[in-house]
Amino acid sequence: MTNDDPPATVGMALEEVDTPALLVDLDAFEYNLARMAAAAADGRVQLRPHAKTHKCAEIALQQMALGAVGVCCQKVSEAEALVDHGVSDVLVSNEIVDGHKLGRLVSLAARATIAVCVDDVGTVDRLNAIAAAHLAEIAVFVEIDVGGDRCGVDPGEPALRLAERIAGASNLRFRGLQAYQGRAQHIRAAVDREGAAGRAGAAVQRTLDLLNSHGLRCDTVTGGGTGTYALEIASGVYTELQAGSYIFMDVDYRANRTREGAEYSEFRQSLFVYTQVMSAPGRQYAIVDAGLKALAIDEGMPAVDGQPMVAYCRPSDEHGMLDVSGSPGVFRVGDKLKLIPGHCDPTVNLHDWFVAMRGGRVEALWPIVARGAGR
Amino acid sequence: MTNDDPPATVGMALEEVDTPALLVDLDAFEYNLARMAAAAADGRVQLRPHAKTHKCAEIALQQMALGAVGVCCQKVSEAEALVDHGVSDVLVSNEIVDGHKLGRLVSLAARATIAVCVDDVGTVDRLNAIAAAHLAEIAVFVEIDVGGDRCGVDPGEPALRLAERIAGASNLRFRGLQAYQGRAQHIRAAVDREGAAGRAGAAVQRTLDLLNSHGLRCDTVTGGGTGTYALEIASGVYTELQAGSYIFMDVDYRANRTREGAEYSEFRQSLFVYTQVMSAPGRQYAIVDAGLKALAIDEGMPAVDGQPMVAYCRPSDEHGMLDVSGSPGVFRVGDKLKLIPGHCDPTVNLHDWFVAMRGGRVEALWPIVARGAGR
Repeated sequence: MTNDDPPATVGMALEEVDTPALLVDLDAFEYNLARMAAAAADGRVQLRPHAKTHKCAEIALQQMALGAVGVCCQKVSEAEALVDHGVSDVLVSNEIVDGHKLGRLVSLAARATIAVCVDDVGTVDRLNAIAAAHLAEIAVFVEIDVGGDRCGVDPGEPALRLAERIAGASNLRFRGLQAYQGRAQHIRAAVDREGAAGRAGAAVQRTLDLLNSHGLRCDTVTGGGTGTYALEIASGVYTELQAGSYIFMDVDYRANRTREGAEYSEFRQSLFVYTQVMSAPGRQYAIVDAGLKALAIDEGMPAVDGQPMVAYCRPSDEHGMLDVSGSPGVFRVGDKLKLIPGHCDPTVNLHDWFVAMRGGRVEALWPIVARGAGR
Repeated sequence: MTNDDPPATVGMALEEVDTPALLVDLDAFEYNLARMAAAAADGRVQLRPHAKTHKCAEIALQQMALGAVGVCCQKVSEAEALVDHGVSDVLVSNEIVDGHKLGRLVSLAARATIAVCVDDVGTVDRLNAIAAAHLAEIAVFVEIDVGGDRCGVDPGEPALRLAERIAGASNLRFRGLQAYQGRAQHIRAAVDREGAAGRAGAAVQRTLDLLNSHGLRCDTVTGGGTGTYALEIASGVYTELQAGSYIFMDVDYRANRTREGAEYSEFRQSLFVYTQVMSAPGRQYAIVDAGLKALAIDEGMPAVDGQPMVAYCRPSDEHGMLDVSGSPGVFRVGDKLKLIPGHCDPTVNLHDWFVAMRGGRVEALWPIVARGAGR
């Protein structure tokens, strides 16, 4: 479409970047990339980061250069966009049920290593028929619901029945289990998070035992997220981590607490929405140019970087109101600020470019090639 | 960017449209267009619909064909996208303060009829200098805060001082006042909405009197929205309406109440997000393929069209959970549903295409050319 012009050029100083813009602090970002890569290597699990967080081929390729085996996507069109830009291995970590979409998925498998999740026998049969018509073989995971209460069959017998159906299908290959506990990612208290992850791990183990007793081998158990990844490693049942948000972080993830009650700060904040004060009608508040179309607020309001006494208190479509009444500083029309998004993934999906910054300068511009790829 | 493929082709039946997709019911949409055009004509006010709602040149041109004098935009890049696609008259109904953006605005004024709002004397001087450097003249509105508590100077003396500054600037032309009471749009009780609109109208009148007494003529007072447009007409002080959402409607606007306590149903629901059941793990809930990246939930959850006993109860990035426990129907994997967005404007900004439907068939595909145009 139009409106593709990036908000900056390489070499530009931060203050010159047009607003609103999505900034990536490269030092923090690279720290996060390396830290998760090391954690996965130390824990002897594969890392398959979730690309729904960034929707960006440059980032996917950096993750793979550091050892990730591939990436996850949630949508076929998202996977297509990344494969079009050089990503060679994608797990569609989601249920694809529509015949048209399944056909595209099978076509994509001719160009890259592709796998997909199922939780429905009808879909298994439909996917097999489409794969057979294309003379293709598709790798398939059974998704089990380990407490996320979203997609997935129940652990145990229902998973076994679906796995047997896949194993018996002419053009499908049973790869293993997907066991993602999405709700556990955002449980604030460490002990409760551990409990949820522990129950998930037990459900996986029980299902693995049942599958093994029926001669069905799982080469991969995939799942895990930024909030629980260390627990998934410790469980001993996961072979592959799907964490995504660790590269950026957000207000929501920082609200998690460690066992000691501290803020969850293992990863550094690398993602910001750069914004400008466009109206400053008084000393009580200031209006910035980033609202609902530049920031996702479903997990709460953004924070103002480095200004704990300033609250982003009211969004509208194209405006954000900052309560500056508690701040010693004065906010003037034209001032620029960095906001920490409340929720990183849907915030990224509102933008077309990452402006990658180092030392106060624009080092690179990365297109968000799967922005809006929702089908 | 990529991912521009529309989710449908012209002539396709509704059931074949890929999901998630943004549908426009053309009969309802055209009814809404005609009704607001007639209301403006009857009320002897100009209609300048807000294009931030649709970001679509086809729709802007249809509105103008029915008598609208032009459209409003909130951002320079949004205005550029519409002018690029044939829209000839845009009021940027917002404060533009950045020098780079002001330069683009002045350039745009060489290609279309452009006006802009100000609430800051520094911006007046900067805009004048840029316009002078381009040998251009820019039409400028003073925005006054009539209770929206967002941008705008106070009514009365502050507005007078800014208007005098504009009138005295070499390359600016004072056009009048913008007085938009955004908060009043969503006040539920009719009597409270009327009170807020009445106070706004009184503040406008007081400011007009003061400007007139100083020899400053306002040819236009612009403002108003879908929730209050009839009150703005009745006030006698507005000459131009900026309503936008009337073309589509949403759950939030329908929650407004008439004087009789009824649902606000003057305009018909024409906008839907088409979605598919991708997982149906039990009789209690079903999972659809439209989540936070396909639907804005800042004003509340979407409703399920025609299914009052089904609640969209939990969104995640790419999933929506429907509570179907109260429904007599059975939800099966592959079923398709129409959702009524909670908030139309930011929902539209998540999509690249409108799929315009009539009689169960796709009649047209309209690109959302200013999708993501946030600068």
